[in-house]
Amino acid sequence: MSSSDRRIRLNAFALAAPGHQSPGLWRHPDDQSHRYKELGYWLELARTLERGRFDGLFLADGHTPPVVYQGSHDPALTWAIQAPRNEPTAMIPAMAAVTEHLGFGVTVAVTWEQPYHLARRLTTLDHLTGGRLAWNVVTTWRPDVGRNMGMPELPLTHDQRYDRAEEYLEVCYKLWEYSWDDDAVVIDRAAGVYTDPRKVREIGHDGTYFTVPGAFYAEPSPQRTPVIFQAGSSPRGRDFAAKHAECVFIVSTSTAGARYFVDDIRSRAAAHGRDPHEVNIILAVSSVVAEDTRAAREKYEEYLTYVSYDATLTHFCGLTGLDLSKLPPDEPLEIKQAGTTKSPLEIFVKADPGRVWTPNEVVRHLGIGMMGPVLVGSGAEVADQVEELVDETGIDGLNLMCAVNPGTYVDFVDLVVPELQRRGRVWTDYVGDTAREKLYGPGRKLLLDSHPGAGYRSSRTVST
Amino acid sequence: MSSSDRRIRLNAFALAAPGHQSPGLWRHPDDQSHRYKELGYWLELARTLERGRFDGLFLADGHTPPVVYQGSHDPALTWAIQAPRNEPTAMIPAMAAVTEHLGFGVTVAVTWEQPYHLARRLTTLDHLTGGRLAWNVVTTWRPDVGRNMGMPELPLTHDQRYDRAEEYLEVCYKLWEYSWDDDAVVIDRAAGVYTDPRKVREIGHDGTYFTVPGAFYAEPSPQRTPVIFQAGSSPRGRDFAAKHAECVFIVSTSTAGARYFVDDIRSRAAAHGRDPHEVNIILAVSSVVAEDTRAAREKYEEYLTYVSYDATLTHFCGLTGLDLSKLPPDEPLEIKQAGTTKSPLEIFVKADPGRVWTPNEVVRHLGIGMMGPVLVGSGAEVADQVEELVDETGIDGLNLMCAVNPGTYVDFVDLVVPELQRRGRVWTDYVGDTAREKLYGPGRKLLLDSHPGAGYRSSRTVST
Repeated sequence: MSSSDRRIRLNAFALAAPGHQSPGLWRHPDDQSHRYKELGYWLELARTLERGRFDGLFLADGHTPPVVYQGSHDPALTWAIQAPRNEPTAMIPAMAAVTEHLGFGVTVAVTWEQPYHLARRLTTLDHLTGGRLAWNVVTTWRPDVGRNMGMPELPLTHDQRYDRAEEYLEVCYKLWEYSWDDDAVVIDRAAGVYTDPRKVREIGHDGTYFTVPGAFYAEPSPQRTPVIFQAGSSPRGRDFAAKHAECVFIVSTSTAGARYFVDDIRSRAAAHGRDPHEVNIILAVSSVVAEDTRAAREKYEEYLTYVSYDATLTHFCGLTGLDLSKLPPDEPLEIKQAGTTKSPLEIFVKADPGRVWTPNEVVRHLGIGMMGPVLVGSGAEVADQVEELVDETGIDGLNLMCAVNPGTYVDFVDLVVPELQRRGRVWTDYVGDTAREKLYGPGRKLLLDSHPGAGYRSSRTVST
Repeated sequence: MSSSDRRIRLNAFALAAPGHQSPGLWRHPDDQSHRYKELGYWLELARTLERGRFDGLFLADGHTPPVVYQGSHDPALTWAIQAPRNEPTAMIPAMAAVTEHLGFGVTVAVTWEQPYHLARRLTTLDHLTGGRLAWNVVTTWRPDVGRNMGMPELPLTHDQRYDRAEEYLEVCYKLWEYSWDDDAVVIDRAAGVYTDPRKVREIGHDGTYFTVPGAFYAEPSPQRTPVIFQAGSSPRGRDFAAKHAECVFIVSTSTAGARYFVDDIRSRAAAHGRDPHEVNIILAVSSVVAEDTRAAREKYEEYLTYVSYDATLTHFCGLTGLDLSKLPPDEPLEIKQAGTTKSPLEIFVKADPGRVWTPNEVVRHLGIGMMGPVLVGSGAEVADQVEELVDETGIDGLNLMCAVNPGTYVDFVDLVVPELQRRGRVWTDYVGDTAREKLYGPGRKLLLDSHPGAGYRSSRTVST
């Protein structure tokens, strides 16, 4: 199955905070993102996305706002860059209660909780959503994040962090795939057996970073292992993604950059013995859509008036680790100073190797949509752009970032989705109930056999 | 205000697991608790409780099932004693979405997460529920619980655990009460100021167990600090509760035992400078109600046929730390062997000092409702028993445990609540939106000034 035969997968990318990837646009009178604290805001968004037959809503997270620009949290607080922010898993079951099919991806770091603790939280979400959960596995690379968590210095190197994340997933796979047989829960009222203890086993994990000798005490959820998302952009991160991820979220401001990441991740997946197309790759994009070309351009121009120099640089500097507050607005960035550990900057460099980035260029090009292209036009025009982007880069779908929330999603659902449906590029109705079945087809609720987590499955037979 | 003037507060006590405090009764054909994994099960329960004007639903938790009886997890798995079990916070926002007033209490240990991490999770729940959250603060006393969490031995003594819990709450109070002024979030679109950074301050906590120098990055929720629940039964635990708790959950199988705990907690609260009646005390009870006396007795007798010797002892031995599996059924328990650290056993001893407990007596008296009295009768009869229990013990209300879920709650709401309403002992409609206003009256969303957490409030004025 070549990638061009496949339907385009639509995801939305949000944060439990005001604003997101269009810094400053919370000031737009139509923006409702200050309602992130209200259940109603999320229920409406979930209903909108399900109406547009989106695969899922993907929720980012992190514990602290960026503190690079001007060296303090003041610009981030002032401009609402990732602050204030709530914890994202909490909204998911409520959104699941008002939808039937929409998937929910959520970012949870492997840094702050023991794998047993997080595994149970995720299993519970997969149960309550009927198997609609995806987990974006992230490690923490910003040293300032740990200071409020009893970890004033992150104790590991970049590669050690990924080694630890590998072992973290190994523990989770053992808990999710190995500890309980499919038929362990029997609920035999006559015999007085709820769970057959012979079909529940201790995982006996004794590793470098974690010791988990016992059994899991949550029963398997519909997907057992939630769909594994990953968004690492460093070479080690992409290798981790190519091995474990069923869906990879990439960012790039250019077609060439996206193509580079797609090819790289697929070849790494093949090296891990997987079909390269088992890894679904979605690209961050934003869109500004209206009834016709002119109205869309006008809307885009109007949105641009809400872009803020300070807000954009606060966000960008947080992503790249570069403090541009003392750089004159038209002075080129010294890309080399970024070093290899500031991997997010590579995205922009690789994405657009010919461009000379200055603070003003950053603001001009990234002030709306920050990490990806902005598609502007009528429904048909944006549908053209989506098709072109997919066909030229080899991505499987989009991760749609709002300019204005929920307007960007409402416009896309009302104007672009019907056009893509007419062209047969997106589905007109859901097929399959779980998040994984949306990726691999009906009946495929569990990890594919080629996935490394599948290797931890027990034989599921009782030794008598 | 004397306690007898006050309305009786009704809470329900549940667990994200099959069964609960009536081991074996998951086998009853009417019991639906195997549906604990489904959202619909919780949404129905929440609606039932709100229909009955319950103050709240209180959710217990813990990570492992009891392993004392027969020295393994096999009986607990077989009899579904606290296993399999999901994580309980996940259902709360979904239940909040289908109710307007019902409160949600949830048990989360201070053992497994850094206070910053948990504080943000709880703040998010308080936001999404519109201020309907209560947090049951527990420490972990069972050594076997830590083995899957990288903590094969609990490193602290009983009193150190409470010292650490004190400091944990101190960090939470600083994050919730001190870090953000009420007017920090301004959302000034014209000026481009979402949050005024001058009104967000770092908490600078540097203590024995925790170091949290920075600011909180979630904005204050409706209650700031969720209502503090506590259920400690040891003297140190009761002192902790008397200082911090706004609602204390007690268990006792006798009126005399309940009276003892009520008097003790209220006098300890007074010693902490609080009005003794600021601490709301709720007692665990179960009930079996039907249209008339005879039908209720028959229902109770029928329920008793589902009580299991092994299931009850598995639960009881887990609570007390005593393995009674080798004790003949009519042999008295050697109470003294329990030692002073097995505080849950004291409950039963103190509760009923005259009784000789044998395994058979445990099963006979605790097989339904486990930790509290079982009220059996018509609606009017059970209302009589409730009034008598409240008036003789000085408790503020009940924490209703199911015999059969949701039947116990449905019967109580349909048959007992209307009777108590007619007698003016419970309210006929909700007053106040938040969990705390249900305890202290409309407008009292925040901690009372006499609460130790209130001492961490900032002046909430900007230093210019």
